[in-house]
Amino acid sequence: MKIIIIGATGTIGKRVTAALSKEHEVIKVGSKSGDLQVDISSPESIEAFYKQAGAFDALVCVSGDAHFGPFATMTDADFRKGVNSKLMGQVNLVLIGQRYINPKGSFTLTSGSLATDPVAYGANASTLNGAINSFVIASAIELENGVRINAVAPGVVEDSPAYFPYFPGDIPVSMERVTQAYVKSAFGAQTGQVYLVK
Amino acid sequence: MKIIIIGATGTIGKRVTAALSKEHEVIKVGSKSGDLQVDISSPESIEAFYKQAGAFDALVCVSGDAHFGPFATMTDADFRKGVNSKLMGQVNLVLIGQRYINPKGSFTLTSGSLATDPVAYGANASTLNGAINSFVIASAIELENGVRINAVAPGVVEDSPAYFPYFPGDIPVSMERVTQAYVKSAFGAQTGQVYLVK
Ligand SMILES: NC(=O)c1ccc[n+]([C@@H]2O[C@H](COP(=O)([O-])OP(=O)(O)OC[C@H]3O[C@@H](n4cnc5c(N)ncnc54)[C@H](OP(=O)(O)O)[C@@H]3O)[C@@H](O)[C@H]2O)c1
Ligand SMILES: NC(=O)c1ccc[n+]([C@@H]2O[C@H](COP(=O)([O-])OP(=O)(O)OC[C@H]3O[C@@H](n4cnc5c(N)ncnc54)[C@H](OP(=O)(O)O)[C@@H]3O)[C@@H](O)[C@H]2O)c1
Repeated sequence: MKIIIIGATGTIGKRVTAALSKEHEVIKVGSKSGDLQVDISSPESIEAFYKQAGAFDALVCVSGDAHFGPFATMTDADFRKGVNSKLMGQVNLVLIGQRYINPKGSFTLTSGSLATDPVAYGANASTLNGAINSFVIASAIELENGVRINAVAPGVVEDSPAYFPYFPGDIPVSMERVTQAYVKSAFGAQTGQVYLVK
Repeated sequence: MKIIIIGATGTIGKRVTAALSKEHEVIKVGSKSGDLQVDISSPESIEAFYKQAGAFDALVCVSGDAHFGPFATMTDADFRKGVNSKLMGQVNLVLIGQRYINPKGSFTLTSGSLATDPVAYGANASTLNGAINSFVIASAIELENGVRINAVAPGVVEDSPAYFPYFPGDIPVSMERVTQAYVKSAFGAQTGQVYLVK
């Protein structure tokens, strides 16, 4: 299988890349790093990227920024940064990618446990995660040629200690469990699922 | 209580307005209709609107457009129309409105059952509804001065027969049940809730 991993050099992405590279051709992608580059916040960049990458069997996106900060002073501009990256970036990877993906291929997006279990400062991330979860269940019933789509919704992960103070009482999720959720999405047969790893 | 209803002249909004007007001061708002006008897709218009409306006790938003159409041909521009209206319109009503609302006031937003129960052509609406649901649960834990926030998530309603063909098998929801969910949000004591009316 030919697998594209957007965010392959990131905290979660490098673990997913290690797991999927064992038996498959993996194209590592970042905005600056990787084998190929794309800026997911730009639809033009995504279109150019897919033309360059060619047909593929699975796309895994482990990328997308959200704004973290107090709700009392959050602005439209703060909120839209996350919308343009984590929401529209991932949505456009699918809207455009559906024309490049092989039959029976799969998309795996990343949301997060904040969709249903919020923390202070996380309203933007929660919103985008909830959006991605619903995008996945809705697009799954319309994607053609047997193409599947799922989301992985991780809690804060073991390799991100800088985030721990924002998640009081949450037990960081092991990298192994998070990684396996991406494996399950890409190689399993389910579609329209949100795999919560918490 | 002084209650602002955005979308007061709409299919659902006029029922909500009738119910809330009995015992309260209601300011009816639309982009063209109503006592006051606002374009929720513009943060500048929202800021000017709140300055004009003055302090208030409850805001109910029964407005916000989504794009309906086949997923196979949906574009970034299609998708963003809904993001700017139903998502960012409602988000900005709260981000900006938190500076104008009275202590112990409430915000009630509108999402929809498509967040969790999708139909063909509805991927944009599903996504925005999921976003609003998560926005409400997350902002509820940060809003200050006892201000509350909830969402109403209606299924297709009895007064919208034009939509029935897109919801095969769904029993349209009575206007009475939908209206009462807005009453429950505005006059109840709960916060961070999504009232599914299905
Ligand atoms: N870490 C956690 O605890 C945690 C928990 C729940 C959910 N998540 C979610 O998981 C995802 C990944 O998180 P992470 O902590 O692994 O992130 P990270 O360490 O910051 O890695 C981000 C990756 O995305 C790439 N990237 C950044 N901007 C990009 C752009 N505009 N276009 C394409 N690629 C871009 C980066 O490569 P370049 O530097 O080359 O751009 C990098 O490979 C995010 O959506 C995050 O919200 C993370
Ligand atoms: N109808 C259903 O079956 C159903 C089911 C589930 C969810 N919903 C959701 O419920 C909400 C209301 O639906 P509806 O069917 O009642 O809508 P509708 O009949 O189209 O009414 C829309 C209302 O919003 C106002 N409005 C439109 N654009 C606006 C803008 N840019 N700024 C401020 N106000 C604006 C309109 O007044 P003007 O004409 O003066 O602008 C009107 O009062 C929508 O978010 C919809 O997705 C509806």
